[in-house]
Amino acid sequence: MRLSVKRVVVLLLTIFGTYALTRTLYQVLTCPRKVPRTHMLSVLVRNWNQTEYRYNQNTPMVFVGGVPRSGTTLMRAMLDAHPDIRCGEETRVIPRILSLRQGWGRQSEERWALEEEGVSQDMLDDATAAFLLEVIARHGEPAPLLCNKDPFTLKSAVYLSQIFPNSKFLLMLRDGRASVHSMISRRVTIAGFNLSSYRDCLTKWSNAIEVMVSQCLVVGRGRCMTVRYEDLVLQPRSTMQRVLRFLNSPWHEGVLHHEEAIGRPGGVSLSRSERSTDQVIKPVNLEALTRWVGHIPADVLLDLENIAPMLRRLGYNPKANPPDYGQPDPEVVNNTQRVLRGDFKTPTNLKRWVQRWITPPFCAVHREGLLQDAQQPEKEIRSIITMQ
Amino acid sequence: MRLSVKRVVVLLLTIFGTYALTRTLYQVLTCPRKVPRTHMLSVLVRNWNQTEYRYNQNTPMVFVGGVPRSGTTLMRAMLDAHPDIRCGEETRVIPRILSLRQGWGRQSEERWALEEEGVSQDMLDDATAAFLLEVIARHGEPAPLLCNKDPFTLKSAVYLSQIFPNSKFLLMLRDGRASVHSMISRRVTIAGFNLSSYRDCLTKWSNAIEVMVSQCLVVGRGRCMTVRYEDLVLQPRSTMQRVLRFLNSPWHEGVLHHEEAIGRPGGVSLSRSERSTDQVIKPVNLEALTRWVGHIPADVLLDLENIAPMLRRLGYNPKANPPDYGQPDPEVVNNTQRVLRGDFKTPTNLKRWVQRWITPPFCAVHREGLLQDAQQPEKEIRSIITMQ
Repeated sequence: MRLSVKRVVVLLLTIFGTYALTRTLYQVLTCPRKVPRTHMLSVLVRNWNQTEYRYNQNTPMVFVGGVPRSGTTLMRAMLDAHPDIRCGEETRVIPRILSLRQGWGRQSEERWALEEEGVSQDMLDDATAAFLLEVIARHGEPAPLLCNKDPFTLKSAVYLSQIFPNSKFLLMLRDGRASVHSMISRRVTIAGFNLSSYRDCLTKWSNAIEVMVSQCLVVGRGRCMTVRYEDLVLQPRSTMQRVLRFLNSPWHEGVLHHEEAIGRPGGVSLSRSERSTDQVIKPVNLEALTRWVGHIPADVLLDLENIAPMLRRLGYNPKANPPDYGQPDPEVVNNTQRVLRGDFKTPTNLKRWVQRWITPPFCAVHREGLLQDAQQPEKEIRSIITMQ
Repeated sequence: MRLSVKRVVVLLLTIFGTYALTRTLYQVLTCPRKVPRTHMLSVLVRNWNQTEYRYNQNTPMVFVGGVPRSGTTLMRAMLDAHPDIRCGEETRVIPRILSLRQGWGRQSEERWALEEEGVSQDMLDDATAAFLLEVIARHGEPAPLLCNKDPFTLKSAVYLSQIFPNSKFLLMLRDGRASVHSMISRRVTIAGFNLSSYRDCLTKWSNAIEVMVSQCLVVGRGRCMTVRYEDLVLQPRSTMQRVLRFLNSPWHEGVLHHEEAIGRPGGVSLSRSERSTDQVIKPVNLEALTRWVGHIPADVLLDLENIAPMLRRLGYNPKANPPDYGQPDPEVVNNTQRVLRGDFKTPTNLKRWVQRWITPPFCAVHREGLLQDAQQPEKEIRSIITMQ
């Protein structure tokens, strides 16, 4: 067979035609048949080695939340240590947008005025989802499973579950006495919480967690899971196994050593402005479990059932100081001993901002506490463990 | 030549190959060579006959604004009457998002805290643009040129010009005495304006328009144009010719008869909750031009240069009551006579809500005014025109 120009052209076109036909067939067979809405928003992000990740409203994602000082940072740091998951720091802007959106949705004059102006609730949902998607997708290195942790977002779990139909939720629960002691002793400002009153903070804690739990119930077990802080620090392995099963992510040993992934590419990124940073640089330990004991005023303890009815509803005995939180895994006991010996200091690059935030009187108390820890590690760990 | 199966397959593949090659070449030659950022947001909207419109941050669009009661609704209605332009009602949500975004951008603790949390200003810009684009694109029928009218957005013209690099701005200017008389006599609530005081409203008017004018100057003449309300109603043809040239849109006679396009597909959509609706249902007329004369308290008039320094800066003589606004086109005089005869009544479907908003005392005043108009059309129009 002679090689004529015509034959070469026909051959090349035939090869190209075969390739194009195969590609078209592949696209027809693998792509969804039709666009489900008039528009589909998608955000494209590239990682360090130019791998492309495309996210849209239907992409699975995880929202981690709970009342502040309930282990939300620990949970997201452990997830961040998983190679397939990226949470990142708090965004601060997401709860603000959600609260603005909520105001436009109530059965109020505002809602009717908006409808009258041709601004439908559907449009606002898509606009809100577009905003959130941009922030969540670009808040750090891309990953197969995106995650967001802004504690109070779980108050809007039902709404988020609607605008992101494949999202899941992890609601952190913790003994309210511990959360409140932590926010008061560390002076963690939270809108609406009066840090000079255990009574006020416990009331607000109870109200906030009640809203979150009821939202979680509406979202349903398939998509919202509650995780106790106490379980997470006492039995991190079995707890994280349960969490990763719920998220359909494979088990990865790294989640039990999040402290080793801090600052690594694809690992845990921490912020100098978050108050939990100096805690999550340490491995999972029992240091904070029962620190509240002996700090709640007697009159508050007596009236606890009325002040914080959610304590009993969540299974934390209001009369026990402390209740039995369960038995610790041996590796956690080991971690706690190392932490109390002072093996984990906040690195300088994560320290500066924290110090700017600490007010002088608290500074003194805090240093005193550290001093005690350093002097009496063995005594303290014994007391923590025997308290269980 | 015999028709064998092999030959048919080769022929078909050759045809398909030619088609695919042509398409690929066309795409390579017409599409931008590279994506300018790691992601490009685009919103796809279909109109009634399934024509697809795709909008992104680089799509040209127009923002119409100014102090409320300065003819912003008239301007957007006239643009809406153009077949290539769609503005629509006020969205109410866009100024709220812009003000939230502004709070995150100031050189404040908040900004540094956000940067520390990995939330960059760039991300917030893209998220804000995504939100605005969703709302603007889906706020009505799609059109080649999208437009938004929320009066106060012009206070953020510089910011908008950055996140939408091909946007343009129309800033409506009007004699502040007329704007303020209109908001006070029609009881149009505007955040920060005390409707019981001409002095306060004129001060606020001056401050607001000063911010908008300076923003417009920063954006530059190529992208921000000021339009006087007085020019728009006295010489609508030449003014709209100037506006459409600025927007690179062809002239269309329909813009001079916006009242005929109300409620038509692709025409002017009005809202029962906007206070200008009962005015823009009428053709362009001079009814509102000098209505303020005789209503401003004497002490305010005496101190006008101090209360509202922007009056003189914008060329409105504070000592003239009224100043010479210019000569009207004959068609406007004709429109005004028809309006004063009462030829244009608010249709019932646009009326209900307006009445709900009117408080009883104002209702009485308003009706009285209408009554006078109906009785003395000739006298009133003569007085309006001789005032020029």
